[in-house]
Amino acid sequence: MTLDVQNIACPIPLSDYPTILMAHGGGGRLMHQLIERIFAAAFKLPPDRERHDSAALDIKGISTNRLAFTTDSFVVRPLFFAGGDIGTLAVNGTVNDIAMAGAYPLWLSAGFILEEGLPLQTLWQIACSMSAAAAAAGVTIVTGDTKVVDRGKGDGVYINTAGVGVFEHDCVIGPQSIRPGDAILLSGDIGRHGMAIMAQREGLEFETTIESDCVSLAGAVRRLLDSNVDVHCMRDATRGGLASVLVEIASAIGQTVRIDEQSIPVRDQVAAACEILGLDPMYVANEGCFVAFVPADQAEQAAAILRKDPTCPDARQIGVVDDAAEGVVVLKSRIGSERLIDLLSGEQLPRIC
Amino acid sequence: MTLDVQNIACPIPLSDYPTILMAHGGGGRLMHQLIERIFAAAFKLPPDRERHDSAALDIKGISTNRLAFTTDSFVVRPLFFAGGDIGTLAVNGTVNDIAMAGAYPLWLSAGFILEEGLPLQTLWQIACSMSAAAAAAGVTIVTGDTKVVDRGKGDGVYINTAGVGVFEHDCVIGPQSIRPGDAILLSGDIGRHGMAIMAQREGLEFETTIESDCVSLAGAVRRLLDSNVDVHCMRDATRGGLASVLVEIASAIGQTVRIDEQSIPVRDQVAAACEILGLDPMYVANEGCFVAFVPADQAEQAAAILRKDPTCPDARQIGVVDDAAEGVVVLKSRIGSERLIDLLSGEQLPRIC
Repeated sequence: MTLDVQNIACPIPLSDYPTILMAHGGGGRLMHQLIERIFAAAFKLPPDRERHDSAALDIKGISTNRLAFTTDSFVVRPLFFAGGDIGTLAVNGTVNDIAMAGAYPLWLSAGFILEEGLPLQTLWQIACSMSAAAAAAGVTIVTGDTKVVDRGKGDGVYINTAGVGVFEHDCVIGPQSIRPGDAILLSGDIGRHGMAIMAQREGLEFETTIESDCVSLAGAVRRLLDSNVDVHCMRDATRGGLASVLVEIASAIGQTVRIDEQSIPVRDQVAAACEILGLDPMYVANEGCFVAFVPADQAEQAAAILRKDPTCPDARQIGVVDDAAEGVVVLKSRIGSERLIDLLSGEQLPRIC
Repeated sequence: MTLDVQNIACPIPLSDYPTILMAHGGGGRLMHQLIERIFAAAFKLPPDRERHDSAALDIKGISTNRLAFTTDSFVVRPLFFAGGDIGTLAVNGTVNDIAMAGAYPLWLSAGFILEEGLPLQTLWQIACSMSAAAAAAGVTIVTGDTKVVDRGKGDGVYINTAGVGVFEHDCVIGPQSIRPGDAILLSGDIGRHGMAIMAQREGLEFETTIESDCVSLAGAVRRLLDSNVDVHCMRDATRGGLASVLVEIASAIGQTVRIDEQSIPVRDQVAAACEILGLDPMYVANEGCFVAFVPADQAEQAAAILRKDPTCPDARQIGVVDDAAEGVVVLKSRIGSERLIDLLSGEQLPRIC
């Protein structure tokens, strides 16, 4: 998804001032130049005279009773990693949150908190990544904001995106629609995003680089919704990984969730990196992987539909919602024993998104 | 607008861990506790099982063709100041951006970037301020996100809000609707927000404290739109102050804007503080003050309508849009001379919002 802009020159001549200054956040000439030359250029915003404090979203002709609205801030370290950067993450993270609710993402906002001293070329690269990721996900970045904080009071750049999408159906897709007996599908292999970040931070080297799975899931979700599958709930397995998402859902619905470790795909190098760092892939963050709860008799059909999407070639059933009203997650391990999965109380991988 | 919560105990017992830990951003148990006990409590969010990655906004029965969508990040120092705090600012700033487009603000998102070590009591106070400001502005905080950055990599808390509003009319309220001859109204006295922050930072003391004008302008705008005034454009005079807003608009429309310094109200203590610090109040930020462009023959009526609103008792005409197509701002000074107003190239007041 990342546009290769390493060699595309930043539209502000770096000979003028190669880095972000406090004045870039001050509402004066430099801020206007930054908005025009970097953000308006990368995001293809309308001309200045048609822009305003708010973007106007045209919903004429869109038949809907409900909108989806969500937000996420991104503070990942490092800013660039194998398979993406903070910009691709900021677009796909919010796109996926809207898709998981069963809505179609259409519009994004982008709020930047820049640290004094950030190279302009870095900001330009990130803006170009966001532009490419937005195009791939079918969304438009329509409004934004820039603030600058003093050197040392940030980490280069923090990005917030908020997103608006439309529901084209009246189904409630969420934990409250999950029923005992539902099948639990997983869209792909787990742990790639978190381990891509950690491998980079820790300087781990493997035969091939572990790349983040960061991608828009909006297309895969649309396939599922456009078919006749009754999707009860979807959730992407981001911070806290697959384990945390399942525990949250089990706890919210008060039903027991049973999953089979053997059915959960983990790529060899991800497993190896987890082994080295002493991490459990079940708790490692993903940015392109989700669980879906569907009626048991539609599980095979739903998995087959997902596998047709390029982002979900390994989609499969990994478990079921049990009759027992205990609100816990039970994992059947590879050797056949059963154990309870819980939320981590501490922090396994700080700042992976 | 600030709720006095100094004495309302934080719902998480401070004896457990009195400050934000990295784990509060990790997707595990502590993050869930933070969301439930602080944010869900302050913002009165629905129960866990009905919450999802995205909020669903019910627009059934709302007759509209267009939505307004905007975002702002807030990095103000200090977090608390006379007349408000980063929380009131984060709500009113986004509410006002929507109001300025001529839409009615309804829903907000809130994204928090917390610094490790932030006292939980501080976060609770800010969340309560946001809740009170949202109630006063008639908006609901419906979705949010929390990230934690390492000690030293933030400044306590940065907040992003995005907002969605609805247009209940088909008028285009923006620079492109401004016509030569339009009257320019100002809703109130200028410079209070910026000088409240600066007086606090610099330890200036006056007989009475300068308080920020931070307030929702949604009610005042609604009065104007509900009357029969043809509002052509509105903009709040935030970063860069009244001068920057007028320069931006003049430049965008390519017409000359003429204003009369004598008609622009500045409170005595704001003027005194500006004098001491060598600042021009025309460039000092406001958070509860806006300009409106209306047809000349409706100027008196529009100002009178605004003055009925408790947030705009001093509303008045301060200038006109000239026939000349020069795209500049000409200020007639108190002594009768004329001078051009321009954008500041540097930074007068860093981090005032």
